[in-house]
This record gives sequence, C-alpha cells and structure tokens, in this order.
Amino acid sequence: MTEPTKFTLTEDRIPTHWVNLMADLPGDPLPPLNPGTMEPAGPDDLTPIFPMELIGQEVSAEPEVEIPEPVREVYKLWRPTPLYRAHRLERALDTPARIYYKYEGVSPAGSHKPNSAVAQAYANKEAGVERLATETGAGQWGSALALACSLFGLECVVYMVGASYDQKPYRRALMESWGATVIRSPSDTTESGRAQAAHPTGSLGIAISEAVEVAAGDAGTNYALGSVLNHVCLHQTVIGQEALAQMELAGDEPDVVVGCVGGGSNFAGMAFPFIRRVLRGEARTRFVAAEPAACPTLTRGVYRYDFGDTVGLTPLMPMYTLGHDFVPPPVHAGGLRYHGDSPIVCALVKQGLVEARAYKQNETFEAALRFARTEAILPAPEPAHAIRAVIDEAEAARQAGEQRVILLNLCGHGHFDMSAYEAYLAGQLEDPEFSEADMEAALERLPDAPAIA
Amino acid sequence: MTEPTKFTLTEDRIPTHWVNLMADLPGDPLPPLNPGTMEPAGPDDLTPIFPMELIGQEVSAEPEVEIPEPVREVYKLWRPTPLYRAHRLERALDTPARIYYKYEGVSPAGSHKPNSAVAQAYANKEAGVERLATETGAGQWGSALALACSLFGLECVVYMVGASYDQKPYRRALMESWGATVIRSPSDTTESGRAQAAHPTGSLGIAISEAVEVAAGDAGTNYALGSVLNHVCLHQTVIGQEALAQMELAGDEPDVVVGCVGGGSNFAGMAFPFIRRVLRGEARTRFVAAEPAACPTLTRGVYRYDFGDTVGLTPLMPMYTLGHDFVPPPVHAGGLRYHGDSPIVCALVKQGLVEARAYKQNETFEAALRFARTEAILPAPEPAHAIRAVIDEAEAARQAGEQRVILLNLCGHGHFDMSAYEAYLAGQLEDPEFSEADMEAALERLPDAPAIA
Repeated sequence: MTEPTKFTLTEDRIPTHWVNLMADLPGDPLPPLNPGTMEPAGPDDLTPIFPMELIGQEVSAEPEVEIPEPVREVYKLWRPTPLYRAHRLERALDTPARIYYKYEGVSPAGSHKPNSAVAQAYANKEAGVERLATETGAGQWGSALALACSLFGLECVVYMVGASYDQKPYRRALMESWGATVIRSPSDTTESGRAQAAHPTGSLGIAISEAVEVAAGDAGTNYALGSVLNHVCLHQTVIGQEALAQMELAGDEPDVVVGCVGGGSNFAGMAFPFIRRVLRGEARTRFVAAEPAACPTLTRGVYRYDFGDTVGLTPLMPMYTLGHDFVPPPVHAGGLRYHGDSPIVCALVKQGLVEARAYKQNETFEAALRFARTEAILPAPEPAHAIRAVIDEAEAARQAGEQRVILLNLCGHGHFDMSAYEAYLAGQLEDPEFSEADMEAALERLPDAPAIA
Repeated sequence: MTEPTKFTLTEDRIPTHWVNLMADLPGDPLPPLNPGTMEPAGPDDLTPIFPMELIGQEVSAEPEVEIPEPVREVYKLWRPTPLYRAHRLERALDTPARIYYKYEGVSPAGSHKPNSAVAQAYANKEAGVERLATETGAGQWGSALALACSLFGLECVVYMVGASYDQKPYRRALMESWGATVIRSPSDTTESGRAQAAHPTGSLGIAISEAVEVAAGDAGTNYALGSVLNHVCLHQTVIGQEALAQMELAGDEPDVVVGCVGGGSNFAGMAFPFIRRVLRGEARTRFVAAEPAACPTLTRGVYRYDFGDTVGLTPLMPMYTLGHDFVPPPVHAGGLRYHGDSPIVCALVKQGLVEARAYKQNETFEAALRFARTEAILPAPEPAHAIRAVIDEAEAARQAGEQRVILLNLCGHGHFDMSAYEAYLAGQLEDPEFSEADMEAALERLPDAPAIA
C-alpha cells in the first residue's frame, strides 16, 4: 500500500493530436457503400448530415490529426482523466496480476462520450450548423452531446431508446438541464419512428434512423453519432494516449487491454494507441472486447456489409452484424444494445488482433459490485462487462501464478443506472438471452451487398 | 482562454495533517453541556457512542492532528480534488471577478463527505467496533459512510430523512450497493422514531435521535455524525489545505471564500485553513456562508445552548438554533435542513468573521443551471446556495468595477438530485418559507440552559 494508487497528469499533458489507426492498418480499408449503387460512398453521401471537417477525419489517411485548440480547452474541464492501480481489487482477488484502470467517469456527463461530442459540436459550430440531432441508448451519449452543444451554443435534440427512456428518467433530466430536447424512440415525430411502433422498447438502430431522418430533412440540422464511425473512434484516442503516458509513470507495461464494446468507441479510444504499437512491432499486447450475451455482435454476428441503422438510411458498413433490424432484449447496458460495431474494431477482431467475449447481465453486475466495494467507484453497466473480463483475466493469472498486467478502460459511472442496481440487489435482474431465431431472421434480411473476402 | 483552467496536485500532495482551528480561536471554547447536570460534558458523556480517538480529536487543543496513513491511502482514491478557474462562468457574467472553485464531487460518493466518513470508519475499526449507525439527509453523508464502512469491513445502518428517502430512491440504492442497510426516518425501529410519527417527512434532527438511540443501546455499535461536531470539521480541512496550495499554483489570493452551510462541515473544511491565516494576521479574507431561506439557522436563529437532535439525546451545544424540534419544509437541499450548526462556525458568525446569507430554493436552482451550462458540472442543491452567493459577489464586483477573487467550495454533484432538477425545469419547484410561528414555538421549548455571554 505504499505503492502509488493514482497516476495524475496536469492539463498541459492533454494530447495535441488524435491517433488515426487507419494509417497503420495493413491493406486498404473496406469502404462504406452507397446502398443504391453499391459503389463506395463518397463525401456526397455524407454532406447532408455531417460537416466536411468530420467527413475529412472519417476518411483521413494521416496517422495523426491535430486537435483544435477550442476542443482542447473544453477537454481541460475534466482531462487528463486519472489512471488507477486497483490495489484493493487485486487483494480481494488474491491475484498476482497488477490491475490498472483508466477512469473516464470524471467527465461532467459521466463517461468518455464527451471526448467526441465536444469535437463534433465544435466542427459543426464552425460549419455554421445551428442544431444537432442524435440518438442515445443508456443516455451517456445524449448527455455528452447535450453538454457539448450547451458549451458551443448549439441546439440539441436527442432520440432516446424507449427501454432506457423508461429505465433512466434522470438521464433525461440531465440532458434537459443542459438545454437539450429529449424524445422517446420510436416516436411519432419521424417516418422511421412511426414505422417501428411495433417495437416499443426501441433500439439504437431505430433511434439512429429517427435522428438521421431529422438531420437529412433540415438544412440547419446535422447528425452526430456517438460511436461506430472512424472519426468518433479517432476522437476517443485521447484516452489511450494518456494511458500510455500514465503506464509509463507507473513503470509498467500492459499484457492485456480490456474494454467493453457496444459501437466500439470507448474500446477504440483506449486500445488504438496500444494497437498501433503492436502493428509497428513496438509491443506485444493482447486485447479483449467484452460484449453482452444479449447482443453478441462480435461473438455471434456475421461479418458482412449492413446498414448502421434499423430502417436503412445510412451507407452500408463492413462489420460484424446481427442484422440491422435485430432488436436486442432490454438489458440495462443500453449503450451495448447495437446490432453492429465499428468497422475498424470488427476488422481487428476478424484479423485476430482483438479477442471478443460475451457475458450475461447478472455476472456483469456481480463484477460491478465487487469493484464498487473494493475500488469505491460504482461502474456503469456497460464497463461492468469489461470488469467481468478483467476479473477472469486476474483469476487466470492467479491459477497460472503469473504476474499479468491488466489495463481496463472504466468508461463511465453508474449514477444514472441505479434502477438496475436496485433490481440486481433485489434479485430481480433478468438474464435475457438473445433470440437466435430473431437473429437468423434478421440476417436473412441483410442487404444484397458484395460479400467480404 | 490560454490561461490555465484546472490546478492539479498529485497524490503525494494530500495533506499529512488536519487543521484544528480550535487552537487559534481567541478565548476558551464554550464547552458542550450535559443536559442533566448543566456541567461541561466529558468523555464519559460520549464514550457510549464514539471511540476515544475521535473524542480526543473533538476536544484537541493541538493546532494540527496527524492523518493516519490508512486514511490517507483511502483519500488517494479521489484526492487531491481539482481546483478550477471558472473562465466560462466569468464570461457569462461579464464580470472582472476571478472565480475559482474546488470540486469535491469527484469522490466516489459524490461529495466532500467521505473525507470524514473514512476517518471515522477507520477510528472505529481500530477501536474494535463492528457497526456504525448514522443519519442522512439528502443521502450524501449516508453514501459516504456506506462507502467508508465497505472499505474498512464495518456494517453500516443509515436512518434516512423521510422527505429525502422519497425524493431520492437512487441514493438509497447507492448506499445498498456499498452494503449498507437503509431505514426511512421516522421509523418504528426506535423509540425516538415512534415518538415522531406525526412528522412523516422527518428531519435531520429526528434521524440523528434514531441513530444515536441505536448506538447507545448496543455495545458493538457506535454512532457517526456527518457534520456539526469539531472532529468532523477537522477532517474536512483537507479541502482548504489543498485549495491553499492550488491558489498558490494559480498565483492568486481569494478576497472572499464562499460555501453552503447545513451542519457546517464543507464550509469549515474549505474555510478553516483560510480563517487560521486571518486569525494569525497573515491574510485579509471575507467568508460567506450560504443557507436556505427555508431553514435559516445562521440568519434567523438564536445563539443559545440546544440539543443537537430533535428528541434530546445529545449534549447541549452552543450554537445558532431554530429550536431542536423545529421541522424545516422539505426543500431538495436535504443536507441543509438542520436546526443548528457547527458550534465553531456559529462562533465565527457571532464574532463577525463569517457573514451568513439565506437564499430561496428557486433562485439557487437558477444559479445551479447557469453554472451547469457554463462550467459543465451539475451541482447538488446544497452548493447551489453557495453558487447563488458567488454570482451575487461577481455581479457586485462588476458593478464596482473590481477585480475581486472569489473561491467557491463546490462540495458535490447533483446526479442523485435529478428529481429536483426535473421539478425546476417543469416550473414546479416550490419556494417554501420557514414558518416563523413554528420557529417561535420551537424556541420556547429550548432547554433551560445558561445563556451565552
């Protein structure tokens, strides 16, 4: 216990650039496709809903992209985030492993999401956009964008997945406190929403359709996505860059890096700077992506071109998918209820650089409480999946008698997820299975796109 | 905007000692009195509910008290907390004032309260105590003690003020996540609770009676108080000591230090190290204590000996009081609903070293949202009172054309107070007045103790 607990960087150590892993990936990246022509989607497919600056970041081949100074100024409100050594959890697990975690829950919105929300709000403000439309699952992304819009003077409208809207009323109040308008999805305010009225619990895919439809139909409104896309993963790499510097302060080198994956942004943010070192032959590191067994995209999906949204308004993206109209059971990790994943993360899984594991809801909450009662922080249900994987790694290290170094991205706190903890503590939390039949049916409705080699 | 935003200290800068202001106060302190004999209360009056270590701290005449190493180790989980320059709020107010705030909401329980909870849990654990009983208003203190008990392996039972129990169900879930038992007060588990069944919204005074009764009646159980007492104020002085170091980093000197006051602990924690400098002639600083108009202890109470709890189980303490059985209206700043205040803080108000101001509920929420939409952090309703006072100071500085330096203790976030924000945003938040008639009646029931000179 005389060893350091927390590795702190001052604000002048906030990264000056984002890491663009695209530049280091072997081969040419698979392009998104225009679903009408099946040709690679170009800027014209995206300008109705994104500003050129973000489209440029989406397709950039530069290994690094400079962070605009006004974005770094906002980052100073909570960055650099702390990196912790989990002394108490290690002792509770009686493991020789050394566990570190990077804590993104210190942001005002409570997760890593503002890292990209601020960058997107700034780019849109610079482009003269007046309003941003978006979707949110558990509410983490919606909160982040509401916050970012309030700081840059933009209007914000958030389509919130029905299941989360009902489970997390205080997330809505948080978004409204920052001035956003929040609409339960599926709603009757869009054609996409009305068409999905038969799925009242909603899904990220449906909410994306609604927000994209609103943005595409209004010149002053753009769309902002909280995960999946290359530029979102790019923005999140401040996490991994800071962690690299902090692990150096700790004098340690991770053997395995662990994060949860919904659309992939927090995983990418932590992992990409470490994966770049592996691709450049500078380090040997394993990477573990944890997802919910109720929505097992990486472990059970097919690797195919599919829409990013449920209705089919987006370009087709090369990814593991459960089918764009698959509606996952309403688990509390709302941020992980997505049928697809970041194309880059999917490619890394396909290439074997990243290992995916799926966990059931109750075992993740058991891990979350174990963490809260040793390390004090109450995690969000999403990173609880990653904590479950960390505990498995630490127990494997104990059995092997191995001093494994584990690095976790603890991407957010659970302050707005207390109804889930309440249900877990009362023994009333369900372990919903994803429906294999529903998935098979959804996969049959995949668009008729070229297969991926 | 090229000026620094955040002043960060590494964990080796956590203070090694607490500051005991008692040693620097002029004259002899007024002792607490045994209500039966009206003689000064001694250790025998306190040993049934407190360990000797804390009783020693309560009456210590030493200017500094060493912080035990295991307590500092736990502090490392969130301390030192950041100090911010409120650039965005300053610009929104168009003020020449420079506003700084120390943010205690980064603790896992969301407020400054763990600073004392950890110290108390450790002292009780060392004394062989198995269980702690306490009260909580808004839930900040109960959460903090639940957390501290989980880290030191103690059981924890929390009597939660009825009004807050109903308004903040997720605070209860948070305490239970850390393993505590939470009981709505007034309850039928104690004589004190049963006697107060006519006040179903409860109060801190009633909840204290219940917890004290439980602790006094069970050898293995002690009591822990989250504010008011000298040793609690002592523990909180880590805040002000860090702030002194951080203001030095900022190269600035506060003209006025602002905090909210319920029982006085967060105010004391920030102010005492600064007040010591004033008492020693090393600085000239003003101090502003902000309280709710619904429970205006410092601005409308009488300076007299009174019980700390409603039923009359505690020693008599010299303080401003609204009468120990006065039940304040159920405002959302549950942590400020207390009939008395820390005797030291009261003495400082009496001596004119601290200025008290009372604010209505709606004007504090208006200030809180203004803060959230500029500085990003959503404050708890308690420090919203202090923010209101800071905005007043900043506007006075603008009118005077004066470069006033204002230091705020932002003692916690509002993540568990969203029902209050929801009501405010819907225009449904009340501005309850305290009842002058109820207060006058309560003051008539003050114990027949010696008047204070």
